[in-house]
Amino acid sequence: MLHIPTAYSDRMGRVTQRTPAVRIEVGDPAEPRVTRRPDTIAVEEPMEIRVAGHALTVTMRTPGDDFDLTLGFLHAEGLIHRATDVRQLMHCLDEDESGSPTYNVVDVLLADGVAPPTARDARAFLTTSACGVCGKTSIDALRASGRYAVHADDTVVDPALLVTLPDRLREHQKVFDRTGGIHAAGLFTAAGQLLVAREDVGRHNAVDKVVGWAVREDRLPLTGHVLVVTSRASFELTQKAYLAGIPVLAAVSAPSSLAIELAHDVGMTLVGFLRAPRLTVYSGSRRAGIPT
Amino acid sequence: MLHIPTAYSDRMGRVTQRTPAVRIEVGDPAEPRVTRRPDTIAVEEPMEIRVAGHALTVTMRTPGDDFDLTLGFLHAEGLIHRATDVRQLMHCLDEDESGSPTYNVVDVLLADGVAPPTARDARAFLTTSACGVCGKTSIDALRASGRYAVHADDTVVDPALLVTLPDRLREHQKVFDRTGGIHAAGLFTAAGQLLVAREDVGRHNAVDKVVGWAVREDRLPLTGHVLVVTSRASFELTQKAYLAGIPVLAAVSAPSSLAIELAHDVGMTLVGFLRAPRLTVYSGSRRAGIPT
Repeated sequence: MLHIPTAYSDRMGRVTQRTPAVRIEVGDPAEPRVTRRPDTIAVEEPMEIRVAGHALTVTMRTPGDDFDLTLGFLHAEGLIHRATDVRQLMHCLDEDESGSPTYNVVDVLLADGVAPPTARDARAFLTTSACGVCGKTSIDALRASGRYAVHADDTVVDPALLVTLPDRLREHQKVFDRTGGIHAAGLFTAAGQLLVAREDVGRHNAVDKVVGWAVREDRLPLTGHVLVVTSRASFELTQKAYLAGIPVLAAVSAPSSLAIELAHDVGMTLVGFLRAPRLTVYSGSRRAGIPT
Repeated sequence: MLHIPTAYSDRMGRVTQRTPAVRIEVGDPAEPRVTRRPDTIAVEEPMEIRVAGHALTVTMRTPGDDFDLTLGFLHAEGLIHRATDVRQLMHCLDEDESGSPTYNVVDVLLADGVAPPTARDARAFLTTSACGVCGKTSIDALRASGRYAVHADDTVVDPALLVTLPDRLREHQKVFDRTGGIHAAGLFTAAGQLLVAREDVGRHNAVDKVVGWAVREDRLPLTGHVLVVTSRASFELTQKAYLAGIPVLAAVSAPSSLAIELAHDVGMTLVGFLRAPRLTVYSGSRRAGIPT
């Protein structure tokens, strides 16, 4: 019989949060309209799935329905086929730095006779702290592996220039026009010169292709550059930009909570909803010429 | 010195392809307008990255710039930091069933002194055939693990009903309204009853949460049901729907080539661009009441 605890804390239902944001509207380029107001964003937090205490995967997810997420993941991996294949689901009661439970680790006990995952099923992942996977630990681990002083990059990009970049990326985005089904990433100089544009069905792949180009051209760190993505800004994309030394990540769609937190902590500028004549700055507004 | 072969075949640049499609416009619900015409879609194919012959990961990507994708991936994983960390990049010249090279495996030789990836770095993946990862092998592997006869599901869903489902999903999508940054998946009966709706920053997580709910409720296989997603339809989402026995996957945005191929091969109905009053059927149009 599948046992699912029902005592959830408020924290588990925390699917949105409020964050300070600076909205800039470039009507008259000489005098952009700047509004500071909190913005509601979707929460992104890592969740680790363990089977009998052994880590299987970490996925970046929005908290809530974590047990269903776990069952669905195990099912898609072919590890379980029905509810009775699972004996117990429980949150590992790890705590964050403030002593609150994070509910970010789910431990699964499979029913007798159900084959446990093999080492081949286990995925590589970002963090391995004992029972303490959370956004903060992910960021700390990442910061430890970062090689470039992105926070010290004093590039400034004119918002009136920033809002023109998605259209300039689209001009080079040949596949999107024909299919409507592909993401793009473009690397620009602070003066707005497009250096490379790449398209892919996976937004992380489009960014990998851009950074891989820069690695091959020996251009790292990408100090003074702007990465524009046609998608949302997730933790993963922000991570890839940070590791390449890119000070400004600008996304056409919304950022996640963890992307913003990472950008803050490593001193990156994160722009979301980059849609002329508007954009919203979630971190590092000084690089958009707005004092913090 | 980084050696990159320059002999690319046309196949490597194959980023779009044409596919038969049935577009349905529901102006007058009693008499929908049906147009058959080829549609251009973005190509999705698996690419395996190997280091010194050992498989490291498989990513679903759009072909092209595969060496840059490889370099960017290795960089983001912290395995390399500069071009000189790599001695050689080469395509493994595997062939598909027609004898054409697939160019879907990239083998990397790291420079002397660069630490090779550990077993912990290796990711689980879909296929492990010797040198022959391609869309076809991914589908064959998946079909072998499928438990439900989705192809035999004779559900029919009225297109006039289908086009109303995204709005009905949105009504239950509380987070999107506030953030604009989240995906949703909703499971409907063929009569249009919404059974469960889930939101997540990751579209695969939203689908896992829906299928996990169904696993927990012992409702598998989901014969006669429709899964609506607010995103594009990728191979991964189609796979998850198939494994849960769902006959109809309907996406608000574009499908990928491999999603369509999978849907065809397992007898699923795949709908894209589900935006009232229109939708496009890429596979299994009989379930939309259109003879194939």
